[in-house]
Amino acid sequence: MNDSYLNFVNSPFGARFVRALGLPSPEVLRRYRADQPEFEGLVAIGAGRAPHLLDALASLVVSIGVTSVAHESAGLWVPLAQRHGLMTGRFEPAEAGSPGKLAALLFDASGIEDSSQLQPLHGFFHDTLRSLGKCGRIVVLGRPPQACASPRQWTAQRALEGLTRSLGKEARRGITANLVYIAQGAEHDIEATLRFFLSPRSAYVSGQVVTIDTSAARDTSDTSNTRNTGNARPLTTPAFDWAQPLAGRRAVVTGAARGIGASIASVLAAEGAHVIGIDIPSARDALDATLRQLNGTALAFDIAAPEAPAQIAAALDEQGVDIIVHNAGITKDKTIAKMTDAMWQSVIDINLGAQERIDDALLGAGILRDGGRIIAVSSISGIAGNRGQTNYATSKAGVIGRVQSMAPHLQARGITINAVAPGFIETQMTAKIPLTLREAGRRMNSMSQGGQPVDVAQTIAWLAHPGSGGISGQVVRVCGQSLIGA
Amino acid sequence: MNDSYLNFVNSPFGARFVRALGLPSPEVLRRYRADQPEFEGLVAIGAGRAPHLLDALASLVVSIGVTSVAHESAGLWVPLAQRHGLMTGRFEPAEAGSPGKLAALLFDASGIEDSSQLQPLHGFFHDTLRSLGKCGRIVVLGRPPQACASPRQWTAQRALEGLTRSLGKEARRGITANLVYIAQGAEHDIEATLRFFLSPRSAYVSGQVVTIDTSAARDTSDTSNTRNTGNARPLTTPAFDWAQPLAGRRAVVTGAARGIGASIASVLAAEGAHVIGIDIPSARDALDATLRQLNGTALAFDIAAPEAPAQIAAALDEQGVDIIVHNAGITKDKTIAKMTDAMWQSVIDINLGAQERIDDALLGAGILRDGGRIIAVSSISGIAGNRGQTNYATSKAGVIGRVQSMAPHLQARGITINAVAPGFIETQMTAKIPLTLREAGRRMNSMSQGGQPVDVAQTIAWLAHPGSGGISGQVVRVCGQSLIGA
Repeated sequence: MNDSYLNFVNSPFGARFVRALGLPSPEVLRRYRADQPEFEGLVAIGAGRAPHLLDALASLVVSIGVTSVAHESAGLWVPLAQRHGLMTGRFEPAEAGSPGKLAALLFDASGIEDSSQLQPLHGFFHDTLRSLGKCGRIVVLGRPPQACASPRQWTAQRALEGLTRSLGKEARRGITANLVYIAQGAEHDIEATLRFFLSPRSAYVSGQVVTIDTSAARDTSDTSNTRNTGNARPLTTPAFDWAQPLAGRRAVVTGAARGIGASIASVLAAEGAHVIGIDIPSARDALDATLRQLNGTALAFDIAAPEAPAQIAAALDEQGVDIIVHNAGITKDKTIAKMTDAMWQSVIDINLGAQERIDDALLGAGILRDGGRIIAVSSISGIAGNRGQTNYATSKAGVIGRVQSMAPHLQARGITINAVAPGFIETQMTAKIPLTLREAGRRMNSMSQGGQPVDVAQTIAWLAHPGSGGISGQVVRVCGQSLIGA
Repeated sequence: MNDSYLNFVNSPFGARFVRALGLPSPEVLRRYRADQPEFEGLVAIGAGRAPHLLDALASLVVSIGVTSVAHESAGLWVPLAQRHGLMTGRFEPAEAGSPGKLAALLFDASGIEDSSQLQPLHGFFHDTLRSLGKCGRIVVLGRPPQACASPRQWTAQRALEGLTRSLGKEARRGITANLVYIAQGAEHDIEATLRFFLSPRSAYVSGQVVTIDTSAARDTSDTSNTRNTGNARPLTTPAFDWAQPLAGRRAVVTGAARGIGASIASVLAAEGAHVIGIDIPSARDALDATLRQLNGTALAFDIAAPEAPAQIAAALDEQGVDIIVHNAGITKDKTIAKMTDAMWQSVIDINLGAQERIDDALLGAGILRDGGRIIAVSSISGIAGNRGQTNYATSKAGVIGRVQSMAPHLQARGITINAVAPGFIETQMTAKIPLTLREAGRRMNSMSQGGQPVDVAQTIAWLAHPGSGGISGQVVRVCGQSLIGA
């Protein structure tokens, strides 16, 4: 739970010590706090040829209330920003010597149609990266490759992945780098996602690729589910109550008694949701305590029991539910030669089978309302496999299959389904890993540290947001850009 | 070029020394040699419910001439094998104490339709993994998830990825584990691929997922391009001359003067192809020497030159070409703040732009014949990104986009296009990496060692095979199942 090395290297003596020895020097990550401004500082804007997203970006910059500077690659930005009533200036490469000047780098690559047009990306990041401050944000915006008209365009857009992931690996200092592909027609549905990637809420999410699609999901969500639209609708961007986006929504969280599940419950409640927490009867006291604090509802059910889906459905039937978070999961690690049949079966059944049965019960009876959100917790082990975790990795790879396969079926009802895949998160579970393995897991990522349960919870809250209706069937890693993958 | 640690730990004293200290103990990988049998030993067969592929597997086992034993999960195997005239026995879990007894483990998971049916996978690998010998082979066979009728089936099939990758990570001892998805209707087009994954040719390919589709490519290839069918057609499997599958074919290899390119040229020539090697004029002597040895043709062209595609097309026009291997590539590593515009541009242009221009010239003029094969070299950096390689990773991610985007366009002509993504390969280039970084790159994979150029070359030869027409738009890593990924 406690990374004493991180604390040490950020003490005055420790900082000198690790510098002298050339040891990794992880940054204390800036995380979201309700009592601190979520967005501040200067955002540098860059663009490739014929950028399509500058108008949407100008709306965003107005909405989050930051100041922008235009890199020479984004000549169109200054007049556009002025039309939006934005204060804006020009980024001067000569100032590259002033580190920490910038809070975020945003590059609109949406108009790039050929590999020969990638050069402005070099110009922009070459000029600006050194000016990006600690815990700064890099977001590259493109078009979904598979939707591109020509192979040349697909190729150039796909190339952005290699760039973004490399930037994340070389930026260090708590900086994240992510790539957002925006489908044609979804230009004005980007705010919830860009807010997340620019916010301290995404402190431990880096090296990720997310696609925002135009979807039935989005339309339904916009019309029937936006209950608090206190803000004036800025331009054409859908307006949400950014402070309480989940107000009026009901969210079920499995495994909510403690750890990551309790953090998910807490973040969803802070965003306005009424949380129904589920955990096994033996954890009833912790579950009750967690949910009492959040003015939520505690349901003590063993999700592995055959009758559980029907019981959960019965408990939720009257008021329905808007958000389901499948967080409950177990590990029973052993190499396969030593793994008993019971260890295999219980992990597959709880981590995967129970999710399937609960969703069937809630979807079949229409308890999950139209425009709803399903978020399932997978794992980096489900992506890369892991020694001693054949059962766990199989179940978590199955979770990825689940969100990919169900997304098209749920689209007509405006329901999205996505997975988050945590990397090394500081929990009671990871605290039990032997020291050297634990240290390797902690340091082998672009943040040189483990994540916190709240990092997983914030990622889930973003996917649960009414403004995230264009995202479905996807997997987002919460891993600080772990080296480990497939 | 030389892994002295690998040599040391495999000496009598070294083996005792590393055991005493608990250091990694990489196996000397068994690689293909023309003077040694490619397939030998005992293959254990396992299966889930209602397996669809046992008949095709029986044909394969006949064709490669090995002996099989049926695990209790594959009760159908024994009568089926007898119908195919195969010697077969039963695998007795009691014999699990006899290590090294088995050469390969093959599991047919194609009939699994629900996560509750995954249990036979545990039973099979639990019973057999310890009996698998050094440099043994694990192949799991399933159905392509995205083609599955129900989300439940898709989920269960997708779960196989987590299992296979975990098996690769825990098996060690030079054992590879790969997952092959076989589309309905492609059951009898699996032999070229299964031969590769069972052969010492795939020594450094592990943790990979490959889909064999039914495709126009396959059909064209079967009818018009199988020039040497000396073998009797075994059952319904297409017959190829397995010893000289590329006889009569012409293959272009860029960057062929030395290193991985020379190895590719050499393997393709050994498989019967006439190789046309291309390299820059300054490497003309090495190029001439390499191609002279192979009775091939040397073309000294700078592929970056604007006139190169037309020159290459003119040189190949008369006789046409069947296989294009885009191997030429350069690195110019620097963090982006220190990377000049020229370093960015030249890497993007040579590694990506030149491939695009050459393919346009050869495809537009019909010089690449119907049923042809394009194989492009990507990199693990293109998948995961890499510090100091924004230019290289961008170009190599673009290569992935190129094969994904062009595959559907080429299908009607029976042409496949795929990428191979090498991990740490022992070359003059990697020999220049500083020692500690080099050691980390070498050891951070399931083989605890770097690969050899021939491992990349053999993978390319498999994709170039006339029997690989069902594989297109895919990326295969040659990385010993590197930990590094995305």
